[in-house]
Amino acid sequence: MKKSFGAKTLVFTNPVWCVGSYDVNNQPNLMTVAWGGICCSKPPAVTISLRKATYTYGNIMARMAYTVNIPSVKFVKHADYVGMVSGKMENKFETVRLTLVKSDLVDAPYVEEFPMILECKVIHTHEIGLHTQFIGEILDVKVDQAALDASGQLDMNKVAPFTYDSDTQTYHRVGDAIGNAFKIGKEL
Amino acid sequence: MKKSFGAKTLVFTNPVWCVGSYDVNNQPNLMTVAWGGICCSKPPAVTISLRKATYTYGNIMARMAYTVNIPSVKFVKHADYVGMVSGKMENKFETVRLTLVKSDLVDAPYVEEFPMILECKVIHTHEIGLHTQFIGEILDVKVDQAALDASGQLDMNKVAPFTYDSDTQTYHRVGDAIGNAFKIGKEL
Repeated sequence: MKKSFGAKTLVFTNPVWCVGSYDVNNQPNLMTVAWGGICCSKPPAVTISLRKATYTYGNIMARMAYTVNIPSVKFVKHADYVGMVSGKMENKFETVRLTLVKSDLVDAPYVEEFPMILECKVIHTHEIGLHTQFIGEILDVKVDQAALDASGQLDMNKVAPFTYDSDTQTYHRVGDAIGNAFKIGKEL
Repeated sequence: MKKSFGAKTLVFTNPVWCVGSYDVNNQPNLMTVAWGGICCSKPPAVTISLRKATYTYGNIMARMAYTVNIPSVKFVKHADYVGMVSGKMENKFETVRLTLVKSDLVDAPYVEEFPMILECKVIHTHEIGLHTQFIGEILDVKVDQAALDASGQLDMNKVAPFTYDSDTQTYHRVGDAIGNAFKIGKEL
């Protein structure tokens, strides 16, 4: 028996991504989003949804570019902070003391200290309602050397991403592996 | 110093959702996706991306409805199985021995045994490339009594959702809480 919670944005799991952009004065901005996901394999593309009221919305509309910066658990405070304060009020890179790197590929900055970043060129925008979807073609994924294993491969445990429970408004780390995809289902 | 991995769909975290739909003969189908996320708060909406080659694609195009079924970790084999086998070949609900419930709100079935489901009416479709985005307005979120706490509130630990690492193709449970949103950032 199931209980109805009504028409709500309740789902698990949500990502936690900090979106990098530049404003008209080239001031960098960083804003945290949980509404987003990969949306296409070819071209590789990721979608994020923003309210028009956000500073980042205007930035991306003008530059048609953004970065997705994946914070590790040690940056949970930074991610939370840049999700609370508007870039209209301050340069958040300075406040949270993160180093910005100007992307060579797109007109947006990324966070040096975060373990993994995606550089995205906007290829579509979609008005859904309160939120606008920005579909970004992923031009490159860059990962810190420190988040690679001995053979140079990406190691999620070293990236240490976290997820967002929008119901209780808490962040949660990613836990243990529970099975291999395209394999464990064959046991049924 | 960061290493470039190129233009790839590499990101953390990805959800694991089983999408419910009906085909032209009213045969129910279930298919696992990791490309998706919440995309709007008003109307509450969730996006999933599907290749045209999938059986679910045609089903949703015809019915303009789907359900998002969130498996708990104990259903990881079921979720993996329905992500591997096409509904063109078999009725997967029967194969994996899951009980389908016909939604009262949308023209799609959901999984009785899964702890949490979203009933969605398609309000937009967007061609991105290999994948098509289906934007579903969330008409209701239903949660098992067993996934509620003593006060009747949703308990993510009881839902026990998991996430997908597309790099190593492994499923991972959601781990410990690491902080409260809109709060922990104030410590900076």
